[in-house]
Amino acid sequence: MTEKTADLRIDAGWIVPVEPDNTLLAGHSLLVRDDRIVALLPSAEADLWVSRERVHLPGHMLIPGLINLHTHAAMTLLRGYADDLPLMAWLQNHIWPAENRHASPGFVRDGTRLACLEMLKSGVTCFNDMYFFSEAVVEAAIEAGMRVAAGLIVVDAPTPYAGDPDDYLQKGLALRDEWVGSAKSNSLVHFCLAPHAPYTVGDRTLEKVATYAAQLDLPVHMHIHETLHEIEHSIEKHGVRPLARLKNLGLLTPGLIAIHAVHLNSEEIAMLADHGCHVAHCPSSNLKLASGFAPIAALVAAGVNVAIGTDGAASNNRLDMIGELRLAALLAKGVAADPAALPAHRVLRMATLAGARALGLESRIGSLEAGKLADIVAIDLNHAATQPCYDPVSQLVYSAGNDQVSHVWIGGRAVLAEGRCLSLETDEVIGRAHVWRGRIGAGGA
Amino acid sequence: MTEKTADLRIDAGWIVPVEPDNTLLAGHSLLVRDDRIVALLPSAEADLWVSRERVHLPGHMLIPGLINLHTHAAMTLLRGYADDLPLMAWLQNHIWPAENRHASPGFVRDGTRLACLEMLKSGVTCFNDMYFFSEAVVEAAIEAGMRVAAGLIVVDAPTPYAGDPDDYLQKGLALRDEWVGSAKSNSLVHFCLAPHAPYTVGDRTLEKVATYAAQLDLPVHMHIHETLHEIEHSIEKHGVRPLARLKNLGLLTPGLIAIHAVHLNSEEIAMLADHGCHVAHCPSSNLKLASGFAPIAALVAAGVNVAIGTDGAASNNRLDMIGELRLAALLAKGVAADPAALPAHRVLRMATLAGARALGLESRIGSLEAGKLADIVAIDLNHAATQPCYDPVSQLVYSAGNDQVSHVWIGGRAVLAEGRCLSLETDEVIGRAHVWRGRIGAGGA
Repeated sequence: MTEKTADLRIDAGWIVPVEPDNTLLAGHSLLVRDDRIVALLPSAEADLWVSRERVHLPGHMLIPGLINLHTHAAMTLLRGYADDLPLMAWLQNHIWPAENRHASPGFVRDGTRLACLEMLKSGVTCFNDMYFFSEAVVEAAIEAGMRVAAGLIVVDAPTPYAGDPDDYLQKGLALRDEWVGSAKSNSLVHFCLAPHAPYTVGDRTLEKVATYAAQLDLPVHMHIHETLHEIEHSIEKHGVRPLARLKNLGLLTPGLIAIHAVHLNSEEIAMLADHGCHVAHCPSSNLKLASGFAPIAALVAAGVNVAIGTDGAASNNRLDMIGELRLAALLAKGVAADPAALPAHRVLRMATLAGARALGLESRIGSLEAGKLADIVAIDLNHAATQPCYDPVSQLVYSAGNDQVSHVWIGGRAVLAEGRCLSLETDEVIGRAHVWRGRIGAGGA
Repeated sequence: MTEKTADLRIDAGWIVPVEPDNTLLAGHSLLVRDDRIVALLPSAEADLWVSRERVHLPGHMLIPGLINLHTHAAMTLLRGYADDLPLMAWLQNHIWPAENRHASPGFVRDGTRLACLEMLKSGVTCFNDMYFFSEAVVEAAIEAGMRVAAGLIVVDAPTPYAGDPDDYLQKGLALRDEWVGSAKSNSLVHFCLAPHAPYTVGDRTLEKVATYAAQLDLPVHMHIHETLHEIEHSIEKHGVRPLARLKNLGLLTPGLIAIHAVHLNSEEIAMLADHGCHVAHCPSSNLKLASGFAPIAALVAAGVNVAIGTDGAASNNRLDMIGELRLAALLAKGVAADPAALPAHRVLRMATLAGARALGLESRIGSLEAGKLADIVAIDLNHAATQPCYDPVSQLVYSAGNDQVSHVWIGGRAVLAEGRCLSLETDEVIGRAHVWRGRIGAGGA
C-alpha cells in the first residue's frame, strides 16, 4: 500500500503540467512524497490516497516552478542605482566602479538573498546565475531553499574576485568539486561555466572553457550577440561575428546557453538550431538597455530551445518572471508583426521546461509529472485582475501579477505560503539591503 | 487662522509633485482641505497646521493620481475571452459577436465596476473611457469614487446601443446635458466625444463631431493610425491617409486625443505637434495586437503631448497603469535605440499631467500643487522588489508592481487604504464577473 500514501496533496482549480503540451486539467489533485511528485489525478481518484497534509486552493492554478535562465542575482543591491543612461556610460562610470568597490562575498550573499526573496514571490524555483563569489550565491540559494545553477564566471580582466582567467577557472572548478559528488552534494545545487561575453574573454580562455565543459559535462552560460557593438568589436578584432568565432572554438554545443541572442541573421539562427544550442531571452533588459529586438518567433520556428531570464536587477530592474512571461509574449507578437505569435501555453513552456532543458535538468524539473522533483507554484486567479476567467493560462500570461503567486514548493518543501516567504526572514533581508544602500551611497558618478 | 487647518495631513518618505518637473521632495507633508490640496510643505512647517486626520507613510512615495487616457472599461468582462488570434479574426469572430450578444447597461455597469476596482489598485484616479451605454460607465465611476471622462461613442454601424450616427450623437449629448451645468453636476464626471476610428465613421458624422466638439468644448477621443490596415483602407476609400482626412474635416485641434498613433511619418508627427493634438500611447495593446511600434521618443521630441492608456482588458489584458508606465519607458528605449530615451520622471509626467492636459483638466488635476483637486496615490517602496532605494522615481517606473499601491485619495476622499478598496465591495464586484462568465460561456467562435 506504500504507493497510496503521500506527504502532501494539493487540490487546485486548474493544473497546467506543461508536459503534455497544451494540457489544462480541472478538478485534479497533485500528490507529493518526499521531494517528488508521485501522482497527478482527478480529485475523486486522489481520495483513495492517504496524505499527511492537504492544501485546498480553489480558483488557483498550479504550474511547474518557473526557471529564471539568466540573472546576476547579487545585483539587486544596485537596483535603480543608475538608470536612463547610455549603455557604456552606465557600465563604465556607474556599475563597474560600484562593483569594483563593493563586490565581496558579503555583498553577493546579501544581494542574492534579496534576489531569492523577490524571485520566490514571483514563482521562480530555479535560477541560472552569473556573478562573482559563487560560493556566496550557493549559500544564499540553499538558505532560500531554491534550486540554483551557479555560473562560474570567467573574465579576461582582474576583478575583486580573481586576477586572471586561470584564477577564475581554478576558483570556480574548486567550488564545483566541493559540491558535486561529495558529501556536501545537494540536489538544489548545480553549476554552469560562465564566460562573460565574447568581448571580455579571449580565445585561449574560451578553449579552456570548452575543454572543461566537455570533460565535466557542464553547461556554458554566456552573453552572446547582445548588442551591435559586440558584433562590430568581434569583426574588428577577430574578423568574424561572435557566433562564428565561438563555433571555431568548439563552443557551439547542446550545452551552450546563449544569453540575449538579439542580433542574429538567418544563418546564425540555423546555426544555433543545428548545434542544439539554447537561448535565454531577456525581454525587459533588451528594451531597457536598447540592445535591440530578439527574433524570438523566428528562433522558435527554427526549432531553437528558447527559455526566459530576467537578467540582473541593474538592467531590468525587476526579477519578476510573471512579468517577464507577459512581456516575452507581447514583444514577440510586436516583433513578428503577428498577434498569434508566441501564444500563452508556449511562453509558459519556455519559462519552465525549456529552461530545465537548457540546464540539462529536463528529466528532473520543468513540468508537473510523476517522478519529477516537486517544484510547484500556485497562482491565485481570484483577484480582480484575473476575473472573469475564461482561460487560466491566458490569465496567467497576460493578466496576472506576481502578487498572485500564493504558494511555492521546491523539492516538496513549502518556501512560500499565502504570499509569505517561509525560508527567508523578509525584514532581515531588507534590513541588509538598507545597510548596503548606506555603504554604496548615492547613485552615479 | 483658517489657512492653518486641514482635513488631512499625509507624511510620506518622498513626494513627487510632477510640477515643477523633475522634483523629488523628502521629509515633506501634504495637506488637504475639502477636496483640494492646500499645501505641500517640509514636515516641520506642516507641524504648524492643525489637521483632523494624519496618515504616516514612511518609506512610501506620493504621486499625483494616474490618468488612464484610453480604455474600454466594461471590456474587463471579456478579459482573456479570445487571445493569441489574428486581429480581424479576433474582432470579427469573437469580440464583436460577444459584444452584440451581451452589451447592455448591466454589462457595462458590472464590467466598469470591475475595471474601476482594478484601476484603483494600480493608482488610477481618472480614466478616459470609450464604450457603449456611457450612463452606466458614469454610474460605476461615481460608485467607485473615480474621475471619469466618459467617451460618447459614435460608430457608423448599428449596435445594441444605437442605430445610426445621429442616434449615437443624440444619446451621448443628452447624457452630457444631464450632467453638465445641471443640478446633477459632479466634479468627478466629464465627457469626450468618441468617434470610434477613421474606418468606422464616415465624413458626414465626423463633421458633426467636429461641430459639436467646438460648440460644447468637448475633447475628441478616437483610435487613429493604429494599424497599417487602417491606413491602407483610408487611402483606398478616401485617397488620403487618415490624419490628412481628419485635418480636412477640421478635427486636428488641441481637443483631439489620437489613441495609439502607431504609424506616423515625420510630416504627420509635425502635424500633430503643430495642431496641439494629444496622443494616448497604449504600449501593451500595440504589442499584443501586433499593431506596430509607436514612435514615442520622436513624438515627445517634436513637442506632442503624449500620455498613456491601458486600452481595454480584451487587448491588454491588464488595466495596470504601473505596469504600463514601465512598459512605456522600456519600449521607447528599444524603439529609439537609445537607453536614455523616456527617462523615469518623463514617463511619470506622461501618466499624470500630460493626461490631464489632454482632457483639458490640467488646471484641476495631474500634479500635486496647492489649489488642485486632491487626487493622490501612495506607493509603498518598502517591498523587496523596490529595495534598496537609490531613486524613488526609478523604483516606481522600473521596479514597482501595482501591488505596492497602498493608498488612493480622489478629491480628498480615501478610496483605497492599505491596498484595500473602500469604495467598492471587492467580493460583490468579482461575484458579478462570475455571473457574466456563466452567461457569456467559453471563449471563441
